[in-house]
Amino acid sequence: MFNKNKTDYELDLKGTNNLRGLAIDMIHEAGSGHPGICLGAAGIVYTLFKRHMNIDLDNLNYINRDRFIFSAGHGVPLFYSVLYMLDLLTLDDLKSLRKINSKTPGHPEYKRTPLVEMSTGPLGQGVGTSVGVSLASMFLNQKTNGLIDYYTYVLCGDGELEEGVTYEALSLAGNLKLNKLIVLYDSNNVTLDNELKASSCEDIKKRFESINFNVIESNNDPKSIDEAIEVAKNSHLPSIIIFKTIIGEYSKNAGKNIVHGKPLEEDDILSIKEQLDLHKTPFTISQDVKDDFYETVLERSREISKEWDKKINKLGDRTLIDKIINEENTFDLVNLDIDYENKSLRDLSGVILNQVANNFDLLIGGSADLSSSCKTNLVNEEIFSKDNYSGRNIYFGIREHAMGSILNGLALVGLRPFGSTFLTFSDYVRPSIRMSALMNLPVLYIFTHDSITVGEDGPTHHAIEQLYSLELIPNLKVYRPFDLNELIGCYKEIFSSKDPCVLVLPRDNKEISNKTKATGVNEGVYVLIENETDNYVSLISHGEELGLVLKVSSNLRELGIDTKVYSIPCKKNMKKEVLEKIRSEKTIGITLGVSDYFYRMTDNVIGINEFSLSGSKNELLEHFGFTEQKLESKILEYLNKE
Amino acid sequence: MFNKNKTDYELDLKGTNNLRGLAIDMIHEAGSGHPGICLGAAGIVYTLFKRHMNIDLDNLNYINRDRFIFSAGHGVPLFYSVLYMLDLLTLDDLKSLRKINSKTPGHPEYKRTPLVEMSTGPLGQGVGTSVGVSLASMFLNQKTNGLIDYYTYVLCGDGELEEGVTYEALSLAGNLKLNKLIVLYDSNNVTLDNELKASSCEDIKKRFESINFNVIESNNDPKSIDEAIEVAKNSHLPSIIIFKTIIGEYSKNAGKNIVHGKPLEEDDILSIKEQLDLHKTPFTISQDVKDDFYETVLERSREISKEWDKKINKLGDRTLIDKIINEENTFDLVNLDIDYENKSLRDLSGVILNQVANNFDLLIGGSADLSSSCKTNLVNEEIFSKDNYSGRNIYFGIREHAMGSILNGLALVGLRPFGSTFLTFSDYVRPSIRMSALMNLPVLYIFTHDSITVGEDGPTHHAIEQLYSLELIPNLKVYRPFDLNELIGCYKEIFSSKDPCVLVLPRDNKEISNKTKATGVNEGVYVLIENETDNYVSLISHGEELGLVLKVSSNLRELGIDTKVYSIPCKKNMKKEVLEKIRSEKTIGITLGVSDYFYRMTDNVIGINEFSLSGSKNELLEHFGFTEQKLESKILEYLNKE
Repeated sequence: MFNKNKTDYELDLKGTNNLRGLAIDMIHEAGSGHPGICLGAAGIVYTLFKRHMNIDLDNLNYINRDRFIFSAGHGVPLFYSVLYMLDLLTLDDLKSLRKINSKTPGHPEYKRTPLVEMSTGPLGQGVGTSVGVSLASMFLNQKTNGLIDYYTYVLCGDGELEEGVTYEALSLAGNLKLNKLIVLYDSNNVTLDNELKASSCEDIKKRFESINFNVIESNNDPKSIDEAIEVAKNSHLPSIIIFKTIIGEYSKNAGKNIVHGKPLEEDDILSIKEQLDLHKTPFTISQDVKDDFYETVLERSREISKEWDKKINKLGDRTLIDKIINEENTFDLVNLDIDYENKSLRDLSGVILNQVANNFDLLIGGSADLSSSCKTNLVNEEIFSKDNYSGRNIYFGIREHAMGSILNGLALVGLRPFGSTFLTFSDYVRPSIRMSALMNLPVLYIFTHDSITVGEDGPTHHAIEQLYSLELIPNLKVYRPFDLNELIGCYKEIFSSKDPCVLVLPRDNKEISNKTKATGVNEGVYVLIENETDNYVSLISHGEELGLVLKVSSNLRELGIDTKVYSIPCKKNMKKEVLEKIRSEKTIGITLGVSDYFYRMTDNVIGINEFSLSGSKNELLEHFGFTEQKLESKILEYLNKE
Repeated sequence: MFNKNKTDYELDLKGTNNLRGLAIDMIHEAGSGHPGICLGAAGIVYTLFKRHMNIDLDNLNYINRDRFIFSAGHGVPLFYSVLYMLDLLTLDDLKSLRKINSKTPGHPEYKRTPLVEMSTGPLGQGVGTSVGVSLASMFLNQKTNGLIDYYTYVLCGDGELEEGVTYEALSLAGNLKLNKLIVLYDSNNVTLDNELKASSCEDIKKRFESINFNVIESNNDPKSIDEAIEVAKNSHLPSIIIFKTIIGEYSKNAGKNIVHGKPLEEDDILSIKEQLDLHKTPFTISQDVKDDFYETVLERSREISKEWDKKINKLGDRTLIDKIINEENTFDLVNLDIDYENKSLRDLSGVILNQVANNFDLLIGGSADLSSSCKTNLVNEEIFSKDNYSGRNIYFGIREHAMGSILNGLALVGLRPFGSTFLTFSDYVRPSIRMSALMNLPVLYIFTHDSITVGEDGPTHHAIEQLYSLELIPNLKVYRPFDLNELIGCYKEIFSSKDPCVLVLPRDNKEISNKTKATGVNEGVYVLIENETDNYVSLISHGEELGLVLKVSSNLRELGIDTKVYSIPCKKNMKKEVLEKIRSEKTIGITLGVSDYFYRMTDNVIGINEFSLSGSKNELLEHFGFTEQKLESKILEYLNKE
């Protein structure tokens, strides 16, 4: 029960201190962890949850809940402690911090713990994704007649504001005036290695003003924290609150970098508890604090629930919101109408993407300033901007990394996001692609200009190793179709599943084969040309180069050499038995990228294992031996050696 | 000869226009390219080279030359035109723009064209690297008694200032007060897809003031450009000059994004030439302009050369500067003195790195805020800071991407740079690692915490796919030693070569085997345990897991099963014959990462092909089957199936 004998302020102070105590006990029990932030930022987390977070304790998936993203994920014991105070975790859970398969892993993990909105750990990802989560709220607000209006809070530290991805994403947030995004900046002037000043002397206030943020300054006192958040909630711009905190506050090493990343010594813990008037027995918190916290949140929770029921009942068309609530975010690709004459594969991809968009209102996306090259503009849709939050075309700017992290945010809220750039620049997006894969989010990356056939732009623009390096990421489905038929198959797979996906496309290829099949994509591989005898050589290939392989196959037949041709539009979909079957054949792999891609299936790969050159497509194909004549010679050479 | 009949100002205007004409002719002839920036930024490039760049036309490698980095590399025809006016390229070269093996590729390519300081193309890399080039000048200034004092100019556009890497790198430049760094910002308010405002509304002046830059504003007039550069050169802070330009100026599409990336139509070219009073015949420029430009630069060049001779003759100790000039940047690792008791491999790496540093004055480096974890602090050296430019420990901050691009800059000037972070965060550095590899620069990346054995920090911190994805990058040598002996071998190889390298280390492993060999690293592979009979199974492994493999090998022998054990500390050093020999044996690969790593050598790999979990090292090894018992069972199972 709410304790009427204490003032709110005293309870907040006490509650914050109890949170500190729990967190350092957890870290001590675990034998590893990060006490510095837990002691420093306890007040921010405590006050946010007690006084502001709109959540529904009876329905944790409440779709309009405020989102809290713990971007500085190493401080997560603080958050677990809050969950304990809300009866969403048990004391045993707290004691299992960092143990395998517990609900309390070392960094927040999506779907493992209640109210953990996303996995964090790699600095900056949480901040980037919070922009996507906030962007989704603005979009859904428009699409639901104002029903969706949650806030997105993200907690980050000094280190994260050094990461390029946070700068990219927040600059976009400023441009889009995402005013329900609130960055809670735990400003303690210390990083792991040193004081912040060793690496940075930024005027943070000025920096954020320059990117169109509302900047609020606060100390670490519950009242000040509360007021600062209140101001931020009423801002017409996205806000950052600079909370001046002390890393490891109350520890003997307070204010020093050494308090960042390992458990405190026992005497230090005892001294802290004494200073804060906490129980000496580990994991013991004051019941009045817990009751007060729980009751306060519960009361708000019940009101929210009632309000929501009222509001949603007033809503005319519930279709979209129900789709989001029920996670019905797949789409059946049928009734395509494609005029394919003289169109490149990326053009055709644009046509299909647009037909999907016309019938699938959860689809939203954009490009890192290459929508015109990657053909990912949705022609019947408007631009998402500060003046039009219902647009479905997002202009990310030349911010590939932020694009990835923002797509993750859109997917977390239940949309089906896509983003595009050139394949070679997928390297810039990679840390966020890994997060898509780790959280298994239905994000679609469309990477065009997939190899040396880009031509004159040269080696920096020619993807050699990217295809395979993406393939190596667990969970991620990488599709690379040869022509329209396979492309349709890829899109069917992509939108009927909820997998994180990459679609890789060439710049120019316009070929359409009468032998390719959309249905071949499902298994990842299929036979394009069957062998006619028992004495044959198998050619495995994919993407644009399959056109060349088909020609060479036909030439070889004229020379009396029987061939079988496999198309492999999605290696990860291949079953082990098929891989082994192909390996048991006399097989040659042909790829316009690193040979490694096909080594699991054959030792004989004709690939490109060096950086490319600037030159025309044909000059380059000639240079690297990908002409009919040269490829044929290489195959014959191999057959003669056998 | 210098034309005395024209005023300087008129000649500058005319020269700028002639540059415009050449550039659009080149793009027209090539059939592809980017005229927008060439028309807009011609004045900046022209004025910089005519009036400011200190280069020595008789010695293009002059070590104290001012560096000009064309970060917005797609505008390179402008630069090639300047080189033509300096007789460093021919008209034929200009006409070969974007043709294979020409001196004039589509984007600047390091070592292909005179005075091209680095390859650019992926936006932001040039800016990041310019910070490294400038940092090197401050460092060498201290080490050469003021002899080295070149300026670093970097030309970039709107798009690049959206990239996280430029923000990261320039923020560091501000903190370090690299006042000889001058950013020439071609501010035309247009990006490829749209007007800049679709993706950004940054107050650039404020943004750069917030990161400790001197901000100068200029229009596009030769006089204003000249004065702005002059102001920048005298600044005590790094400078950015915001040049207000018009993309595709004088074209019928001036100011629009469509003028960015394809050749202009013929009538447009003719109209531009008419407006600018240029020869209609392609590739024809005014002789007076060429003469004036050439003579002006030559005059400065001769003075510079004379001055330099004077200065260097006054310098007492020429050792360091001669090393740099003669590119003697390798180091023989001998006379190591290592107390290896109870030290983890990363500790031992720190010991060796420090011994190298003590004897190799070109070594300089740092960490993305993990020097204490990666053990890359140079204990006898000071911190590089605005107050001490002779420090050899660089605090990059949590700016992994910038770190990579800055290391490239340090290497370009002739130093031997290293940088460190955790292996899983190598994803953040990847675009810059690719540039190290593409330019074949002697950069060393030290990535520790190399697999699931990191433990409790969980899946975001556990590298599963990174080792192999790095291995896929052409030119890049990836070393992963098992113990001290192999580590020594790795360091010997790294510092005796000039290859871009990655050294991958575990967090904890302290084992030292009496069977490992430093000399095994050279070939990339060697036999750790020889088979005793002809009926044996080969186990291939690497890194920390080799310890487990050795134990299992010994257990299997007790069971009467003969094994041969290969250690593979550097896959890329392996010869094809060896790969094939291993494949011809009955072989099992064992790796704490994606199985793909060993597929070239065997179909049977025991690896980890999913994201990891938060848990203790032992919990995780148990979970993934990397205990003696479990590994033994798996091997026996495989042998029984055979």
